[in-house]
Amino acid sequence: MKVSARNTFEGIVSAITKGAVNAEVALTLKGGIPLIATITNGAIQNLGLEVGDEACAIIKASSVILGTDLHDARISARNVFCGTIATIIEGPVNTEVDVEIGGGNIVSAVITHESAKRLGLKVGGHGCAIFKASSVIIGVN
Amino acid sequence: MKVSARNTFEGIVSAITKGAVNAEVALTLKGGIPLIATITNGAIQNLGLEVGDEACAIIKASSVILGTDLHDARISARNVFCGTIATIIEGPVNTEVDVEIGGGNIVSAVITHESAKRLGLKVGGHGCAIFKASSVIIGVN
Amino acid sequence: MKVSARNTFEGIVSAITKGAVNAEVALTLKGGIPLIATITNGAIQNLGLEVGDEACAIIKASSVILGTDLHDARISARNVFCGTIATIIEGPVNTEVDVEIGGGNIVSAVITHESAKRLGLKVGGHGCAIFKASSVIIGVN
Repeated sequence: MKVSARNTFEGIVSAITKGAVNAEVALTLKGGIPLIATITNGAIQNLGLEVGDEACAIIKASSVILGTDLHDARISARNVFCGTIATIIEGPVNTEVDVEIGGGNIVSAVITHESAKRLGLKVGGHGCAIFKASSVIIGVN
Repeated sequence: MKVSARNTFEGIVSAITKGAVNAEVALTLKGGIPLIATITNGAIQNLGLEVGDEACAIIKASSVILGTDLHDARISARNVFCGTIATIIEGPVNTEVDVEIGGGNIVSAVITHESAKRLGLKVGGHGCAIFKASSVIIGVN
Repeated sequence: MKVSARNTFEGIVSAITKGAVNAEVALTLKGGIPLIATITNGAIQNLGLEVGDEACAIIKASSVILGTDLHDARISARNVFCGTIATIIEGPVNTEVDVEIGGGNIVSAVITHESAKRLGLKVGGHGCAIFKASSVIIGVN
């Protein structure tokens, strides 16, 4: 399978919490990084997903927000990965920013050109990739 | 009503499953294609949505992932529509790809230029449009 | 904290409805504008979020749909803010549109160039910014 989503992370399912419609899936990525996804119960069934399974988390670059100077800031987004900005590709409306978050993992974000300018992002600088649990798709091979 | 979302599909509500906060809505599109949306219970109430109602599914192009060579791959995204790539419009950061999925339906995806290159997408080639149930807005006339 | 998301609105938490996995959070923005977010229960816990707290709603411009001529149209998206189009920045694939929704609040949307053309958007014209509760991240200082 090949998908357009720029961000694909392999991991092990560490927990599944089911609700009436949605379920929360916790993955442990390489390097012990925890990632949270919310998918439908129907998807859990279709995938036959169970704790201990290998699975991958797929996130579109357009679903990723970039943050800097987070300090003690608290936000509801369950996935916040901080690291070093590796690449910046600028366009007239959007800009792509790739953040190395350790363990060989890179998170790509597409943000507006205006935001990139406002944040003063620079290659080699510090940045955090932020995305909601609801933006994550789970894949199983 | 006119909305910017590139993808609007008319259908009939075939099932509604309610949870405490969210509800899962199943639509049957023209050609019998099944589409799944998760919206809030509050939205179900506001719309007065019931099984058998006509409704349309609205999805932003930026919420759509493109896949190729899916074969037996399994992903949690509840909506996977495969077909033929009809149009590719390239930009410096993003590329728009339109996939004909049959029944006169076309799904538009905005993906990164880099992803389009990596997937080797070509007009006339095979591609699958993939989006999460949580990315779907339901509209009623 | 600085984030790339173009849309950040301060408000007061007016209601929290918990499900098994997700919770619905109602915020009252300046000017009494109601905004709805769905986040995970885990996030509610992490933030220690309670009714009466100050919080901000964060929404990526790419999660926002633009609508015109909504009239009696009904859609499931819980957040619909109408106003005047303040700015349009065009790119080859995407176009950024900023809508003034009153109270000094501006909502930025990134939509496809094609959609902007089809809607006939013009600076000074009427437009509605539409986004799902699931697209909103809640931040607390």
